[in-house]
Amino acid sequence: MSSTTKNTVLTGDRPTGPLHLGHYAGSLKARLELQGSVEQYLLIADAQALTDNAGDPSKVTSNVLEVALDYLAIGIDPRLTTIAVQSQIPELAELTSILMNYVTVSRLERNPTIREEIRQRGFERDIPAGFLTYPVSQAADITAFRATLVPVGEDQLPMIEQTNELVRRFNSTVGKPVLVECDAMLSTVTRLPGTDGKAKMSKSLGNAIALGASPAEIRKAVRAMYTDEQHLRVSDPGRVEGNVVFAFLDAFDPDAQKVAQLKAHYRRGGLADSAVKAVLEERLQCLLAPVRAERQRLAVDRRAVLQILCQGTECARERAASTMDAVKRALGLSYFG
Amino acid sequence: MSSTTKNTVLTGDRPTGPLHLGHYAGSLKARLELQGSVEQYLLIADAQALTDNAGDPSKVTSNVLEVALDYLAIGIDPRLTTIAVQSQIPELAELTSILMNYVTVSRLERNPTIREEIRQRGFERDIPAGFLTYPVSQAADITAFRATLVPVGEDQLPMIEQTNELVRRFNSTVGKPVLVECDAMLSTVTRLPGTDGKAKMSKSLGNAIALGASPAEIRKAVRAMYTDEQHLRVSDPGRVEGNVVFAFLDAFDPDAQKVAQLKAHYRRGGLADSAVKAVLEERLQCLLAPVRAERQRLAVDRRAVLQILCQGTECARERAASTMDAVKRALGLSYFG
Repeated sequence: MSSTTKNTVLTGDRPTGPLHLGHYAGSLKARLELQGSVEQYLLIADAQALTDNAGDPSKVTSNVLEVALDYLAIGIDPRLTTIAVQSQIPELAELTSILMNYVTVSRLERNPTIREEIRQRGFERDIPAGFLTYPVSQAADITAFRATLVPVGEDQLPMIEQTNELVRRFNSTVGKPVLVECDAMLSTVTRLPGTDGKAKMSKSLGNAIALGASPAEIRKAVRAMYTDEQHLRVSDPGRVEGNVVFAFLDAFDPDAQKVAQLKAHYRRGGLADSAVKAVLEERLQCLLAPVRAERQRLAVDRRAVLQILCQGTECARERAASTMDAVKRALGLSYFG
Repeated sequence: MSSTTKNTVLTGDRPTGPLHLGHYAGSLKARLELQGSVEQYLLIADAQALTDNAGDPSKVTSNVLEVALDYLAIGIDPRLTTIAVQSQIPELAELTSILMNYVTVSRLERNPTIREEIRQRGFERDIPAGFLTYPVSQAADITAFRATLVPVGEDQLPMIEQTNELVRRFNSTVGKPVLVECDAMLSTVTRLPGTDGKAKMSKSLGNAIALGASPAEIRKAVRAMYTDEQHLRVSDPGRVEGNVVFAFLDAFDPDAQKVAQLKAHYRRGGLADSAVKAVLEERLQCLLAPVRAERQRLAVDRRAVLQILCQGTECARERAASTMDAVKRALGLSYFG
């Protein structure tokens, strides 16, 4: 397996809750497809999650194992994908502290992703320093693993740009290409809405279906799903756009022809919400039943899961350490050999 | 040697040039006096020096050994004082990244020391992120070594305040006193001026006398020293205030009575600048001759000096690692035991 021919992909999640169908549609599915054809690192970004959860660290730490369970249950294979825990790799903090010298405060404040996230969180002037600088930490993650491809949504493109800026500034300072630039791998998936019709599915908004949801939870969530407020009688024509049930069918039903027929029927009237929901529910029950079963099986032996995480982290740490060694040598910070 | 009864002192220098008499008067002398009575850590702060020398890392890295030579030549005894190199202790970067979440950007921007230093360096809006956040890195240094006393000048008091704020915020979040607050140990020494009369002695201003200066360099520097512009004829009364030669005599001549007599004579007139300079030169030649000799002896075997640095760094790293371990445990970041 030569790393010169294979792309290296870095992705990850902030462990602030168990993963849900939004994660599946938005990233997990793509990771499963990439698995085996690229060198894939999957980072459980607990240190990054602490940048806006510093007052409640247990919200982060208690979810590291949950996220690992989700990864494994959904089919991430630790023999093909390296799963690592960010906080357990000191080289990432070291590289962050080096890269911090190659970006200005005002450049960080101009980062559109950060501006939007600061707005969403209502930080205003009380932005934790760690939050403003997390793009630097993200650049350290990407470059430490020498990732060449980073799957992102459109809104995360400024992060990739900032990473490559840092790479260029660092390399030009030391006069050699120590760090590697990366390419964004733009997701083709439209973002899955919440069950309530809000733009984003999120556990904290209470509009998510967890990957480990029970059959009853799945049923309840689908039944409560936002459809078309104007579709009062079955015979009325209904709207498909903005209708969460159809967004979910698009995302999770592989039979596109059947979904197209359902949409046409709904549009012209005569198709009950309950009927479409029944189709979706069956699909989701089928999709999640094996995930839930595997998750329950794995959860019995948490030590075995921790062992997988520990091994993945060690493997990832070796790679980060070799990058950090090159960085230190290039800067002349290798006094002791 | 119980660490519960002894104070732990952390001091250090940014390795951007060999040390000079300003360092001796301002801090080295006090460190020699403390040596043996406290647990003393002496940090060669190369990582911090990179925060405003990122474009020229060799300016920093090439001076690490020079500073170590100065320490040893002046009498710092590695059996009594732990000399460590900051960049070689990854736990300091790790602790920095944790503490970054417990301070806001605006709080850092309000730090008076940082404001003044930003002004001095002419950074304006182009402040490197690492520079704005270096007080957090300094807080990590202090708390990683569990320092209880930190020798500082008046202008550095805001740094100690910021460190203790971070300690309190962290401890209150995790609900136990994991990090230790420190006290400032205010220097009683007034700052030694440069040989040209400027407020600060600094190698880059060309107004410094290095600890390793040759006899000719010492002579030349003393002869060129700024005295009293109005003192044109020997018989004129002269001013002692702002007169660098007297500032140096105050700092380096232990015979206070003799210095007082010289001052009185100079004030009433009849004492030539050259005569006072001769007294000072003799004193400085006496003070620096053994330092220079020891420095030359040590410089022959640079590997032995590196070995001392390496051992000191290992010892310091153990202490930082034990603090970092406690920090991670308190946050719940110890997944693997």
